[in-house]
Amino acid sequence: MKTTEQSAGSEPGLAAIGMAPSDIGIVGLGVMGANLALNLSDQAYRLSVYNRTGAVTAEFIATHGQGRAIAVADNLQQLVSQLASPRVILLMVTAGRAVEAVIEQLQPWLAPGDILIDGGNSNYQDTDRRWRTLAARGLHFVGMGVSGGEDGARFGPSLMPGGAAAAWPVIRDMFQAIAARVDGIPCCQWLGEGGAGHYVKMIHNGIEYGDMQLIAEVCHLMQHALGLSHDEMADRFAAWNGGRLESYLIEITARLLRQRDHDGGPLVERILDVAGSKGTGVWTAQDALDNAVPLTLIGEAVHARMLSARKSERVAAAALLGSVPTLVPEAERAACLEALHDALYAAKLVSYTQGFMLMQAAAEKNGWALPFGDIALLWRAGCIIRSRFLADIRNSFERQPVPPSLLQDPFFAAEVKNAEAGWRRAVMLAVGHGIAAPALSSALSFYDGYRCAYGSANIIQAQRDFFGAHTYQRVDRDETAHFHTRWLGDGGEEKLS
Amino acid sequence: MKTTEQSAGSEPGLAAIGMAPSDIGIVGLGVMGANLALNLSDQAYRLSVYNRTGAVTAEFIATHGQGRAIAVADNLQQLVSQLASPRVILLMVTAGRAVEAVIEQLQPWLAPGDILIDGGNSNYQDTDRRWRTLAARGLHFVGMGVSGGEDGARFGPSLMPGGAAAAWPVIRDMFQAIAARVDGIPCCQWLGEGGAGHYVKMIHNGIEYGDMQLIAEVCHLMQHALGLSHDEMADRFAAWNGGRLESYLIEITARLLRQRDHDGGPLVERILDVAGSKGTGVWTAQDALDNAVPLTLIGEAVHARMLSARKSERVAAAALLGSVPTLVPEAERAACLEALHDALYAAKLVSYTQGFMLMQAAAEKNGWALPFGDIALLWRAGCIIRSRFLADIRNSFERQPVPPSLLQDPFFAAEVKNAEAGWRRAVMLAVGHGIAAPALSSALSFYDGYRCAYGSANIIQAQRDFFGAHTYQRVDRDETAHFHTRWLGDGGEEKLS
Repeated sequence: MKTTEQSAGSEPGLAAIGMAPSDIGIVGLGVMGANLALNLSDQAYRLSVYNRTGAVTAEFIATHGQGRAIAVADNLQQLVSQLASPRVILLMVTAGRAVEAVIEQLQPWLAPGDILIDGGNSNYQDTDRRWRTLAARGLHFVGMGVSGGEDGARFGPSLMPGGAAAAWPVIRDMFQAIAARVDGIPCCQWLGEGGAGHYVKMIHNGIEYGDMQLIAEVCHLMQHALGLSHDEMADRFAAWNGGRLESYLIEITARLLRQRDHDGGPLVERILDVAGSKGTGVWTAQDALDNAVPLTLIGEAVHARMLSARKSERVAAAALLGSVPTLVPEAERAACLEALHDALYAAKLVSYTQGFMLMQAAAEKNGWALPFGDIALLWRAGCIIRSRFLADIRNSFERQPVPPSLLQDPFFAAEVKNAEAGWRRAVMLAVGHGIAAPALSSALSFYDGYRCAYGSANIIQAQRDFFGAHTYQRVDRDETAHFHTRWLGDGGEEKLS
Repeated sequence: MKTTEQSAGSEPGLAAIGMAPSDIGIVGLGVMGANLALNLSDQAYRLSVYNRTGAVTAEFIATHGQGRAIAVADNLQQLVSQLASPRVILLMVTAGRAVEAVIEQLQPWLAPGDILIDGGNSNYQDTDRRWRTLAARGLHFVGMGVSGGEDGARFGPSLMPGGAAAAWPVIRDMFQAIAARVDGIPCCQWLGEGGAGHYVKMIHNGIEYGDMQLIAEVCHLMQHALGLSHDEMADRFAAWNGGRLESYLIEITARLLRQRDHDGGPLVERILDVAGSKGTGVWTAQDALDNAVPLTLIGEAVHARMLSARKSERVAAAALLGSVPTLVPEAERAACLEALHDALYAAKLVSYTQGFMLMQAAAEKNGWALPFGDIALLWRAGCIIRSRFLADIRNSFERQPVPPSLLQDPFFAAEVKNAEAGWRRAVMLAVGHGIAAPALSSALSFYDGYRCAYGSANIIQAQRDFFGAHTYQRVDRDETAHFHTRWLGDGGEEKLS
């Protein structure tokens, strides 16, 4: 690794041409990189930018450069030479090989104490590995989840940084300055070492899958069980957005339901019912399995997208097995709509309960001190799942002691009890009318399993001991003791430990 | 690698002491290894056996050796020297490092053309890797799933071999001879190259998780919604075992429900409701996510075990959120029991539909020509999920053309339509009484999603395009074309490809 002097020697720094060095270098000027750059520039930070395809840089400068302190670098060595020490470099390149390659190419020009930030959607395990590898070379690596899409990046994203703790005091002001804010609190807090930042971003995305699936199910029930028009559906979502369910996704659902196609019909009706994905939902579901956390709702949401992809198979199955749902009598519609509201709210609570359960398990496994209250706070604005609800979640983590789960928080317990009757009614509506509501109903199954002190797993343990002598524990004995019954023999019981 | 002559030279073979060489060597004399050895011996195969702890071997020979052609090897080199060429060696050691270590230690004594069989519960990806590595050295590696527990191993297991195709003609007679049989057909068929055998065993285990969870849910509903005693529950399962649901797991459930504890109470009531697992259910669920197959029922079953493990959290939640379910009026009980029967049957069909979907996806990805009909056949006896039902599944794969899925098979389509009303009633029973039935209800959600030609994913695509410009396809345009709407701008639509 070259020292600062060496690298400055091989490429003239900005000082040599009479300019102040840049506060931060940005690699990658795609939509997200460019918008974060402009956001930083608006906050009066001096930038150096580099993009592998020079034309993109030229276009960026031509469009936005006027009056801004943005230096252009033709290569990574030059980018490094333009930065104040310790250097802060933000990578906004595609997760995977591109990140790997840029880190590799940058290394010769960096000095101990320099800070590399990966702002892409990297897998947290990759981030964890890079953090370790670079730490061994004296470099501070930060994996930072960036949510909020293009608009968020430009005007206030939710930022989830984690990695080398020594980097945080250096980059804190810069990123808190460009992040979204609620009540003056920036949606950007330090989350912990290693891959903690990208991990929290992954959970954010998984929760997003769940929220979207719940809304889609409710729309389908409104239309096919209650017979609402798209405008009526939009009205309902707009109204809900004034209450407990207030959130970005509810707000945009109201808007998109009103969108008209060329011929005046509802646009959403013309959109193919095959949902794409970028993979973070699958990561979340797999991570839950790795951590033995029952993350059922997001799991069902991920699977629902997979089922949606089997379009031709579904069309054939509909011809063989399908039926047109009957509509609920008009007199019952209003009550059913209330039930759907309550179901959406309660199921969402289950989803967040499961998501925070998973983060707690991951924190324990990875040795992270995840600040759960801060996480709820930093999702309150600037990201896709932003909602009023997250303030209540934050409050739960402020309690002493913290409840065992969100469902056991006094506020949420009262809320869910209040919503319970409507929730059951909504799931029965789906079951009775033959309309798929996997997330709403899976959430209810979880709730009923969670609030059951003595569940049905005794039968499973009896079966396992019967066919495989896997042993069982007893409710009336010390839990460390294991027993086996000679089911097919004399029926006697043996104590094994 | 040494040649046959070299290894024979360093240890005297059985011929040198006037004995015929052995047909097969067995490494590992745990319960499964010992029972497979005795099974092979019963079929007049000559064995050589080795166990790392010599005392285990001595005990085995002392107990079972009399009158059997079983040679004892003190080390792996000697074991190899005792075998006819090409050597056939069955490893019955713990999956993971032990398998790796034994393969490593055996290699110096083996010659090209020799056959190594791993009969443990190895991960199919490990098997795939070992198959490739050993093939490069001229060795034939076979990964063979063995189901049926101790009794199966001793008197007729279901065997799922896959790996080096050249090994099959050599080992076929031996393993078909010891396998379970139905109508004269052995439950042991060649499944394909690489990890195909262990893959199919993994799916078998995943399906087992699903079947067990469904039965546990039905038991819980019988007891807590219908108020049946354990003997009444047992009677019902015994009766069901004479019909469509005839299967090993239904049979043993009837038996274990009758088992009495020391004081005469039902034993299952004293068994702790925390289900253990060996990990293959998690593997199956993760593999489904890797292959983008909506394997919801097994996923819920795996998560239900994870939820069961949170015992103290559930006990606390019950105090806060729980309620004692009311019982169904006695007059409705009989109809509810019929509904539970139909729900169990239909949900099981969904689970197998999903399991075979996953195997089809895996076969395509891995280049396996999995013989689906044979797989159904070889699960009909000798394994935990054995059932009458599997013969009907086999028939489905005999049809020309094969239906797109089991749910679209004419026989099963009629069966599920027949069961549908009862299934819905059973799920509503669970929802209405607050009893968790995640597998029964997840299966129904899948069924309703599967038979829906135009689902709810259009809303998800609209949301994704709204917040992230992820684009959508249209039902009235070529599916290769992608569109984006300027939702917040003029509402215009752009065609992007």
